[in-house]
Amino acid sequence: MSSANIINEGDLVLLVFDERRKWLVKVEKDKKLHTHKGVIDLNNVIGRPYGSSVESSTGAKFRVFKPLLKDYILKMRRTTQIIYPKDIGLILLYSGIGPGWRVIEAGTGSGALTIVLAYYVRPDGHVYTYEAREEFQRLAMKNIRRVGLEKYVTFKLKDVNEGIDERNVDAIILDMATPWLVVPHAYEALKDGGSFVSYSPTIEQVQKTVYALSRTGFYDIITMECLTRRILVREGKTRPETSMIAHTGYITFARKII
Amino acid sequence: MSSANIINEGDLVLLVFDERRKWLVKVEKDKKLHTHKGVIDLNNVIGRPYGSSVESSTGAKFRVFKPLLKDYILKMRRTTQIIYPKDIGLILLYSGIGPGWRVIEAGTGSGALTIVLAYYVRPDGHVYTYEAREEFQRLAMKNIRRVGLEKYVTFKLKDVNEGIDERNVDAIILDMATPWLVVPHAYEALKDGGSFVSYSPTIEQVQKTVYALSRTGFYDIITMECLTRRILVREGKTRPETSMIAHTGYITFARKII
Amino acid sequence: MSSANIINEGDLVLLVFDERRKWLVKVEKDKKLHTHKGVIDLNNVIGRPYGSSVESSTGAKFRVFKPLLKDYILKMRRTTQIIYPKDIGLILLYSGIGPGWRVIEAGTGSGALTIVLAYYVRPDGHVYTYEAREEFQRLAMKNIRRVGLEKYVTFKLKDVNEGIDERNVDAIILDMATPWLVVPHAYEALKDGGSFVSYSPTIEQVQKTVYALSRTGFYDIITMECLTRRILVREGKTRPETSMIAHTGYITFARKII
Amino acid sequence: MSSANIINEGDLVLLVFDERRKWLVKVEKDKKLHTHKGVIDLNNVIGRPYGSSVESSTGAKFRVFKPLLKDYILKMRRTTQIIYPKDIGLILLYSGIGPGWRVIEAGTGSGALTIVLAYYVRPDGHVYTYEAREEFQRLAMKNIRRVGLEKYVTFKLKDVNEGIDERNVDAIILDMATPWLVVPHAYEALKDGGSFVSYSPTIEQVQKTVYALSRTGFYDIITMECLTRRILVREGKTRPETSMIAHTGYITFARKII
Repeated sequence: MSSANIINEGDLVLLVFDERRKWLVKVEKDKKLHTHKGVIDLNNVIGRPYGSSVESSTGAKFRVFKPLLKDYILKMRRTTQIIYPKDIGLILLYSGIGPGWRVIEAGTGSGALTIVLAYYVRPDGHVYTYEAREEFQRLAMKNIRRVGLEKYVTFKLKDVNEGIDERNVDAIILDMATPWLVVPHAYEALKDGGSFVSYSPTIEQVQKTVYALSRTGFYDIITMECLTRRILVREGKTRPETSMIAHTGYITFARKII
Repeated sequence: MSSANIINEGDLVLLVFDERRKWLVKVEKDKKLHTHKGVIDLNNVIGRPYGSSVESSTGAKFRVFKPLLKDYILKMRRTTQIIYPKDIGLILLYSGIGPGWRVIEAGTGSGALTIVLAYYVRPDGHVYTYEAREEFQRLAMKNIRRVGLEKYVTFKLKDVNEGIDERNVDAIILDMATPWLVVPHAYEALKDGGSFVSYSPTIEQVQKTVYALSRTGFYDIITMECLTRRILVREGKTRPETSMIAHTGYITFARKII
Repeated sequence: MSSANIINEGDLVLLVFDERRKWLVKVEKDKKLHTHKGVIDLNNVIGRPYGSSVESSTGAKFRVFKPLLKDYILKMRRTTQIIYPKDIGLILLYSGIGPGWRVIEAGTGSGALTIVLAYYVRPDGHVYTYEAREEFQRLAMKNIRRVGLEKYVTFKLKDVNEGIDERNVDAIILDMATPWLVVPHAYEALKDGGSFVSYSPTIEQVQKTVYALSRTGFYDIITMECLTRRILVREGKTRPETSMIAHTGYITFARKII
Repeated sequence: MSSANIINEGDLVLLVFDERRKWLVKVEKDKKLHTHKGVIDLNNVIGRPYGSSVESSTGAKFRVFKPLLKDYILKMRRTTQIIYPKDIGLILLYSGIGPGWRVIEAGTGSGALTIVLAYYVRPDGHVYTYEAREEFQRLAMKNIRRVGLEKYVTFKLKDVNEGIDERNVDAIILDMATPWLVVPHAYEALKDGGSFVSYSPTIEQVQKTVYALSRTGFYDIITMECLTRRILVREGKTRPETSMIAHTGYITFARKII
């Protein structure tokens, strides 16, 4: 077993009681995690392998996992609505964002998407993320440092409506109230053939953005929505879950042409 | 403009007439692409920037793009059903597969998923892909060389039901008829906390796989399906598309525990 | 205005505060409805036209409507899971159940589907509804008398697994745990070409029922699921609702052949 | 077996080869139906019971069914896009339209919805259907006479934008390009508490209609979309169908208030 599989002080771990009760916590000496299933002494997980189990003060059994990307996103501290994993997956595959890409993001928000972008452009790419509100930027910085991806990100405290400083970037992602106003700046910043992505909850935002893209010199403009549904597989009682997320946002893709 | 944005001999380019008529073609001197919209002389694109347009012999206008990841997948030669971008996006986000990961895939099939995995584990990770049928492997090798990602992949001509050679891998993805038979091998190959993924079109495959996972020492077992729908945004006539893909496959995720 | 539009003592009315706060209540002299928005004196609605408004003791404004079919269903007292309007609509259209039809239902449950069937076979058709548990039957009888449709229904206290007494019926609807066991009885009871419908939450129930139908002499066997999603239309902020029902049950249709 | 189950001359029957190849045909003496599976002599079905089988000239076996409501709709001659059974089911359940109701429809189109409305308001209700284009009305009249429901329908050759003649109706259904223009007329025609329904393919139509309803004195305004998906149940290979209808139209419901 590689040493990377042993839990060390300073690691961010996922403590799992069951599917709905999970905690993302930094392992520190003598630190205790209080849950309604008892107190967990984090000393008990140091030096143990990932995937093993630990007992709380009341005897409840928890599993300790190395957090996956989705755990960072779904468990992070946030002040804004975050983009869901299902939507980010679609954004990656349709935009092509991957290792080595230079990507603009606006706005930073709580940094959920920033984390995923930093994770996927590693180790040679970079994310430039714009945010006008200082308190949001501060939280996002804290969130990204917590997962150790800060060196792949440049945080910019600037209203992206006033322009984008970078040029010849591979992709730009907008998750903001008025994406259509930024379309001309996006055109300036993107390299030829570069990927534009916008994520918006309302149809009016989508309409204005698509009309702006058509006018500005973008091509292959596509808007999609993505729905995921869990299937509960249980002997003799297999069925889809009872309720699901009906809507998060529409995603619009386009490519810059000359 | 960076030199990477100029079309060179040997480049794989995407020629786009409209949304439904696109060609993925290697640029070679004196090569001609025959379409029902006329013949395109590929000499005319050499030295031009990506994103520019070119005319066919009948005057039809085509755009030349650097292919995105999804273009490789949707336009590649295949003999088997391929996994769709929507499903691969979900697999990435929920498994955590990304730069630096060591991943097992079985079976290789036409290599669509292999391409995406190789693309995302770059530059320090690696994909080991198992396939028992030699002619499939040959096609997949050809497809992956075409997009220049072959150095991130080890092709193994072996029936994965007979066992997996690698150990301590970060993730394993099964896209095969009988995934449940491979679950014990997957357990052996994965590191503690490692990600298991299986993609299956039928509910019976899902049931057998989930039951095998529960018996074998996997945790956090989740099955999902993913639906995407296009929204056609046109002034005064905005509406979802008329027909959509209703089903590709169910995706099952799990994590190894000790 | 026709007299049918005036609220009378004994009427069942729908009192609406807003979309989520509605009460189905029988109008009686000196009766009071207690809500968290104040007390409504039902004397104040007697003699008023439907569609008018009434004030509670705290000045909150309520609308008084004649209940629609869906209000009866969604607001009735129940001990069991009920079939949703979306599914019943599909059942009507695909089975053809309508005025004049003779229909078998099993089991009765809380009587939600019974009410809809009675409503639609009026005035010349009839519903025979089987239920083995007396307390369920009693509640269903109460529910159907409340809406005044009891003369179109025969309640049978009998386990439908032991056989169906009627012959030559136009349609049969099963909403029960083991529909596949009743398929041979359904065949006996239906007229040639008659409609079989089964509603089941799990895929295993659907499989067993479809296999039984194929063996027994049914044709045109189709299984469907139905999803509805609300669109929230608000100036500048139009979007689908945030969460939705992901699954109620699968509906299987078939027709008897000789 | 009741005489109603014997096929007679003049009956409209459904000849079924398989799920996708069905013919709706009137039984006449010496008439022959030509299919790519051979010729069927309709003399051979006269006097036979519904649900029995008949052979074509090439020995192909067809089943003869009494058409269900959905068969009338899906197999009728049409010049316009028709409303799907899934949407009509929802309209019935949410509007409450049923036996005895007086209903306005505009426009008539090919008469698919007219047939369903006539079928469900029988025997004491009535449908008044408006259409401005004479050739559409003629086709709709032919379609409804073919299924024998003409006595429940009054066909009006009039542009509904110029007003509705009836008063105190129970429900009104609009399936037309500019429903928002008819909202004031609908208000005049409906009884208090009466049901308004509009069916529109585009989101802009929905928005204008909802805004008009809010301004005009309607309440409980709800917009929905409905998706159905087939499940293919086959031993060991159960799965949803591969493609499905992604969008037909949005349905808006409202109730008149005073």
